Amino acid sequence: MSADAASRSTNITWHAGHVTREDRERILGQRGATLWLTGLSGSGKSTIAVGVERELVRRGHIAYVLDGDNIRHGLNKNLGFSPEDRTENIRRIGEVAKLFTDAGVVVLTSFISPYRADRDAVRALLAPGDFVEIWVSASVETCESRDVKGLYAKARAGKIPEFTGISAPYEAPEAPELVLDTARQTEAESIAQVIAYLEAKRILEAPGGKRPGG
Amino acid sequence: MSADAASRSTNITWHAGHVTREDRERILGQRGATLWLTGLSGSGKSTIAVGVERELVRRGHIAYVLDGDNIRHGLNKNLGFSPEDRTENIRRIGEVAKLFTDAGVVVLTSFISPYRADRDAVRALLAPGDFVEIWVSASVETCESRDVKGLYAKARAGKIPEFTGISAPYEAPEAPELVLDTARQTEAESIAQVIAYLEAKRILEAPGGKRPGG
Repeated sequence: MSADAASRSTNITWHAGHVTREDRERILGQRGATLWLTGLSGSGKSTIAVGVERELVRRGHIAYVLDGDNIRHGLNKNLGFSPEDRTENIRRIGEVAKLFTDAGVVVLTSFISPYRADRDAVRALLAPGDFVEIWVSASVETCESRDVKGLYAKARAGKIPEFTGISAPYEAPEAPELVLDTARQTEAESIAQVIAYLEAKRILEAPGGKRPGG
Repeated sequence: MSADAASRSTNITWHAGHVTREDRERILGQRGATLWLTGLSGSGKSTIAVGVERELVRRGHIAYVLDGDNIRHGLNKNLGFSPEDRTENIRRIGEVAKLFTDAGVVVLTSFISPYRADRDAVRALLAPGDFVEIWVSASVETCESRDVKGLYAKARAGKIPEFTGISAPYEAPEAPELVLDTARQTEAESIAQVIAYLEAKRILEAPGGKRPGG
């Protein structure tokens, strides 16, 4: 056990039964939460998710990003891009995010997640306050003008079927907890906006904001 | 941010890119790992998993149990008990365990997981040393004599089809990292055996066993 873990072990309210989410949150000095980033390809979701993760870890918090890299090639590698598979894709990600939230982690998900019903189903899985919907709101025009990966050009040329924003719909959130206008603000400003939200909601402190037994 | 998080934040080796698993492990003072418990219904898997989780959290570590309660009613609620669905069940759990391991958490899975090939597939997903197969080795006779949930009686009466050990096979591990003989030792002894293994493998200390930059 590290010196840190040794000092932290004195902060636990002990009981005989199952470990609770709050036990872990007290050790971590934070509350578990799901930060669900949604927006078009090229809107900046991944950059912001990774940036928030970096800032949280810099502050000694535990954050984790679920994105195409670790989900589409792993848990969801047996899913395609049909509407049914897209729905199942988001459902599984939501269930995994719920587990991480229960573990006390601040989990960030970075997926287009174009369907409102799919996102609302994830919201319904989680307790009120645990699901933070973050709309990364750059328009199709903005994202297409960036076209960092050349995907919009391919989609316009008909080489990518069912491309969100071009040949498949994107249903914008109606009441997201946060809107990040990445056409008008820098990445650093968007990251700061998310961190400020987490601070305001007291997600970056132990539950109850006091020491156990205090 | 809690006082603990503030003190811990000074221990991070900082870099501009993505957060790494090691960054989180240094904050947590532990290494991520998957402790995969396998054994018959009634062998004691869940009791031991929850007991190890409790002892780890008591010491200030972050551990999390995946079991029927949070998986079968969530991520895997669209799976049944056919051989194909059992395989997909274990595959998904393995992928989720891999994500938790990457997040720096000690994750314990408590599932019968009767097929050797399914368990070996999970082992192959994870890096060497990250997957700890723990055979909870009580025999069918022992488990049936306990029959805490009355499931063996129902299975013998033909009311539960494909019940592992009665009407479906259990393929014992050939080279598990740990064998817990719960017919001959107490729960506390089994829990202590797992903790001793984690200590011996230095899973309960930060990676490298030293402070960053030290």
